[in-house]
Amino acid sequence: MNPAMNSESANGLSDQDRASIIATAEAAAQAAREITLRYFRGLALDTESKRDADFDPVTVADRGSEQAMRQVISEMRPQDAIQGEEFPPKSGTSGLTWVLDPIDGTRGFISGTPTWGVLIALRDETSALYGIIDQPYIGERFTGGLGTAQLSGPHGERALAVRSGVALEDAVIFSTFPEVGSDVEGKAFHDLAARCKLTRYGMDCYAYALLAAGQIDLVVEAGLQGYDVLAPIAVIEAAGGIVTDWQGGPVLDGGRVLAAASKELHQAALAILSQY
Amino acid sequence: MNPAMNSESANGLSDQDRASIIATAEAAAQAAREITLRYFRGLALDTESKRDADFDPVTVADRGSEQAMRQVISEMRPQDAIQGEEFPPKSGTSGLTWVLDPIDGTRGFISGTPTWGVLIALRDETSALYGIIDQPYIGERFTGGLGTAQLSGPHGERALAVRSGVALEDAVIFSTFPEVGSDVEGKAFHDLAARCKLTRYGMDCYAYALLAAGQIDLVVEAGLQGYDVLAPIAVIEAAGGIVTDWQGGPVLDGGRVLAAASKELHQAALAILSQY
Repeated sequence: MNPAMNSESANGLSDQDRASIIATAEAAAQAAREITLRYFRGLALDTESKRDADFDPVTVADRGSEQAMRQVISEMRPQDAIQGEEFPPKSGTSGLTWVLDPIDGTRGFISGTPTWGVLIALRDETSALYGIIDQPYIGERFTGGLGTAQLSGPHGERALAVRSGVALEDAVIFSTFPEVGSDVEGKAFHDLAARCKLTRYGMDCYAYALLAAGQIDLVVEAGLQGYDVLAPIAVIEAAGGIVTDWQGGPVLDGGRVLAAASKELHQAALAILSQY
Repeated sequence: MNPAMNSESANGLSDQDRASIIATAEAAAQAAREITLRYFRGLALDTESKRDADFDPVTVADRGSEQAMRQVISEMRPQDAIQGEEFPPKSGTSGLTWVLDPIDGTRGFISGTPTWGVLIALRDETSALYGIIDQPYIGERFTGGLGTAQLSGPHGERALAVRSGVALEDAVIFSTFPEVGSDVEGKAFHDLAARCKLTRYGMDCYAYALLAAGQIDLVVEAGLQGYDVLAPIAVIEAAGGIVTDWQGGPVLDGGRVLAAASKELHQAALAILSQY
């Protein structure tokens, strides 16, 4: 807990509020973990295609995971609004909204890779206050916001902190697909990636978790939704990193996303991406 | 244990031989797991570049992992030869050779992804008899050969078996990098991938494990070494799949690799890849 955030924080949240939010997020993550693991790599996977052209499969696990999280949140914090990928929004009275992606990386999920995740975020009008990136199969949970920045997993707990002092030519950059959105967005990504030391793909939301954990330096994606990016924003900002759009502006509602481990790398990446 | 392989198998191995081989491989995997986990995502990672142009980093963990495995094998089965990525070959008298890749996917390793692996294989002149694909961070071990085909991991044990009945247009195909070797090799891969339902990257040896576990249908790579492919061959063949070069011939010594979950998919993929 950051001492500067004791008693009452900038967003007017009391210690009690913070404890309640964190407990709710943890309970929601646990509920989603149980549902998703029931179907991951299992035979009960009932896949259908949400949009034929794009092959973005929705699974029973996806819907069940979001339903389970909505139930937990509605019971524990009925005053908050809820938005999720799979169901209509629920309104609230607190000015706070939970934003849920029950399975981020459904393609990875149906392929059996352990790099999809459950994304849980709490936002107000202007910022992502708290977020969880949970990987149920590995049993890893990356949390950030409200004074915390932590990884808990099969090898214990550790603080999350981005790394610094890496120049662009030594940077490791990730994106989920080599295509990276539209043709021009792909061109922008590859222009940037060509100046980095190492480019990797295929990690879904896990790439943002690796950045928060100080393992990689840049994540660049396009065409994201708010529910794809809010939890990564909270976790990465809590770990000392920066997440914006490709012009340096806020990206709470999704779109073109640039996550950077340091101010210097953020500036260097923006200088390239903002030209597109 | 496959009943047809009791007492004495086609390669003249006794039950005692088989038990000794499996125990040795497990002990080697355990030794490698301890070393690699000491350095994975740690601060003690002393990286150097083996070949500047290709960025193929060697880490302390890589060498330590191979040394630990060599020691285990030399003690438990001194009659066998050993070949590894990092150190000169050791000769033997049994006609059997252990082939070791202490960290397959060093780029993934230094990026913190949980998809690199330790590869352990035992081969004779003509085939891969036994193999392990071990992922230390997740704690997952995929084993195959000598009558076994099994996954053990954080969610228990289960038999490995490829899936069948998937047509090429419904197939999920993996490769580690979108570039896939030379220009012509990349062209061949993308010609094939364009006919599949879903293409994913970035999994290193973990993609072969997913194929053996019935999660995906094709893995295509080029420019591999024997130590990259022998353990995958043993595990996938034990799970009912097929691994050859792009002409349908044996690929024990590496090169262009095609792994398929079924005979039908293997033929369909060969029809395209063999043109290049």
